[in-house]
Amino acid sequence: MMTGFEIPPSLGLYGDEKIASDILSRIWGKRGVFTCTVASTMTSSIPGVSDAGDTPELTLYTGAADAELLVNGKTTCIKGVPINPGGIPTPATLTKAALDLSGMQFFIVNGGCFVEPDIPYFYLGGKCGEKITTGHALKDVRTVYEKGYRLGEQLAKDNAFVVISESCAGGTTTALAVMTAMGVLKENLVSSSSPKNPKELKNRLVKEAFEAAGIQPGDLADDPLKAIECFGDPMMPANVGILCGAAQHVPVIVGGGTQLAAVMAAAVKLHPEIVGNFMQGTTRWLMNDPNSNMKKIMDYISDRIPILYVNVDYSESPYEGLQAYEWGYIKEGTGCGGASVGAIISSAGKVTAKCLVDKVHEIYKGIMDFD
Amino acid sequence: MMTGFEIPPSLGLYGDEKIASDILSRIWGKRGVFTCTVASTMTSSIPGVSDAGDTPELTLYTGAADAELLVNGKTTCIKGVPINPGGIPTPATLTKAALDLSGMQFFIVNGGCFVEPDIPYFYLGGKCGEKITTGHALKDVRTVYEKGYRLGEQLAKDNAFVVISESCAGGTTTALAVMTAMGVLKENLVSSSSPKNPKELKNRLVKEAFEAAGIQPGDLADDPLKAIECFGDPMMPANVGILCGAAQHVPVIVGGGTQLAAVMAAAVKLHPEIVGNFMQGTTRWLMNDPNSNMKKIMDYISDRIPILYVNVDYSESPYEGLQAYEWGYIKEGTGCGGASVGAIISSAGKVTAKCLVDKVHEIYKGIMDFD
Repeated sequence: MMTGFEIPPSLGLYGDEKIASDILSRIWGKRGVFTCTVASTMTSSIPGVSDAGDTPELTLYTGAADAELLVNGKTTCIKGVPINPGGIPTPATLTKAALDLSGMQFFIVNGGCFVEPDIPYFYLGGKCGEKITTGHALKDVRTVYEKGYRLGEQLAKDNAFVVISESCAGGTTTALAVMTAMGVLKENLVSSSSPKNPKELKNRLVKEAFEAAGIQPGDLADDPLKAIECFGDPMMPANVGILCGAAQHVPVIVGGGTQLAAVMAAAVKLHPEIVGNFMQGTTRWLMNDPNSNMKKIMDYISDRIPILYVNVDYSESPYEGLQAYEWGYIKEGTGCGGASVGAIISSAGKVTAKCLVDKVHEIYKGIMDFD
Repeated sequence: MMTGFEIPPSLGLYGDEKIASDILSRIWGKRGVFTCTVASTMTSSIPGVSDAGDTPELTLYTGAADAELLVNGKTTCIKGVPINPGGIPTPATLTKAALDLSGMQFFIVNGGCFVEPDIPYFYLGGKCGEKITTGHALKDVRTVYEKGYRLGEQLAKDNAFVVISESCAGGTTTALAVMTAMGVLKENLVSSSSPKNPKELKNRLVKEAFEAAGIQPGDLADDPLKAIECFGDPMMPANVGILCGAAQHVPVIVGGGTQLAAVMAAAVKLHPEIVGNFMQGTTRWLMNDPNSNMKKIMDYISDRIPILYVNVDYSESPYEGLQAYEWGYIKEGTGCGGASVGAIISSAGKVTAKCLVDKVHEIYKGIMDFD
């Protein structure tokens, strides 16, 4: 039973109710800032790894295209919005709905993209990541982390809360590798943008990556930045830094699914004192995914990180591309869960799951008419 | 006589009282966001042009070093804080005092620096500028301007006002050239970081630049972006964009001296409708400078852009490096005037000129003890 705070029906909660209630009572109805860190890893171009793009090659453009869609309302680096094979539109449509409805301030962080996003962005020095099978996926992890930490502090200034999130195709594979290296995961519990989660392929790539780096599972339990350097993607050091820096000052909503679990695991190791001042913000699609297990992953990281999820439902949508979310496609990404949770919180519940769906329809129709 | 708004003694006003009163009544006591666009132009490395650095070569590092000082509290790209020859410290000391006292959110925009600033920054695609004597100082002016416009809109979201400013050595020479090309200036009225303003040298460089570009004074009256491309520095397209984008939504304080006059002249030409929604924020040192004429420049640009200046006074300072400001050194830069004006406004006058001086002493002492 919640003490002191009643969660509206647009949201669901998993985990520590006391911490969730404490955080919500401090930020309910107050202004926050939303950030999305966009990045690329060559890992996503390995056929079969990622469905976050129409083809393996196009997955490298998804982060930049999502950023352009959020800021400019249209994409420049590719034609049309990012889609999964089959035409299911990017979750950035929901993110945009949440940002539009709430009027929340939002900024893109370029963690390191394959192509230059055609927008203003925060830059922390990161570059597009190598395939994790090289065993050294990233450079300059510590300096990017440190700049991220500083940015987190800057964003916390004069804001009641900070939302972090990601758009980085291939990111569940890198998350699996990093959490395995840290010993957080002993089995493959990460999600996928496809309902047919290619678990065998991901396991094989992680095994290959560990062999290349000469690392055994659990070896890097105490060195999360090294785990990210070997097996991570460029979204990670940026977001670990922003989370650690911001949560020193204000609550943070970690928007995303299993990709962000790797960020939280690393942050908790580097700055255990921030536990109690952040929670995950995601979607019911992710929480209900039969092929991943967000709850179990979080239980491994800490039992003091509540998960808030938005009860957005596309089953009545007139658009098949959106109905597909109900069939296990996409589920999370581009901070759609975090932005939705943030919009509901900052509007003190005036934004509801129903308003969000209506707005997504408006945005989706605009995109289709535009094409 | 002011109607509806009484300006506190820490501030002075020049220009349209009605517009100033209207803007102040909309933003007094409300939250704003401060930005400083840092940049470099090879023009500053021409001996004699700029005193914003200990040597001509070091002026190329001043923007990045000021940014590091504001964000990290110390510099990485050079040893010690930026100084004028003789050891007079950067005006970023006053900027930092204003930001610390007000708790205002602040971000650095990297307009295009000679060295990479060791901080998180907004990036808009600009690069370090060439010498104006080449006749084509900058590339990609329109795309940087457009990204700046978008950033201005993003910063205006959920803020009552936006402050823009600059740290770019050599910037009064580029401002003179741009305003001459636009026909705004017919004589050399721009300021200098030295009390011995090298007017002859600046005039000669502008003449050389015009010959190289095949342009006559006034030729680019209707094409400010072309004037900036030929003769500007990388601070300009970024700030013109941010000003135009932000002032569509909220009042803007243009923090700076005669360098920012070029930005305002260009912005007023591109978006005349923003007049009435921005004012200049500067220092009494700049307003009282006998070797430049801010008032006259502003009269040429528009009679509807009020100037608010902070009555900070270093004459009683125990530090000679600060007393030098009273002798005509430095006067403006790194948004020290805009940040001070912004701090007074956002704190509803609780921050005063006296508080600012006390805080500068604390910061200056810290820097000297550190060295």
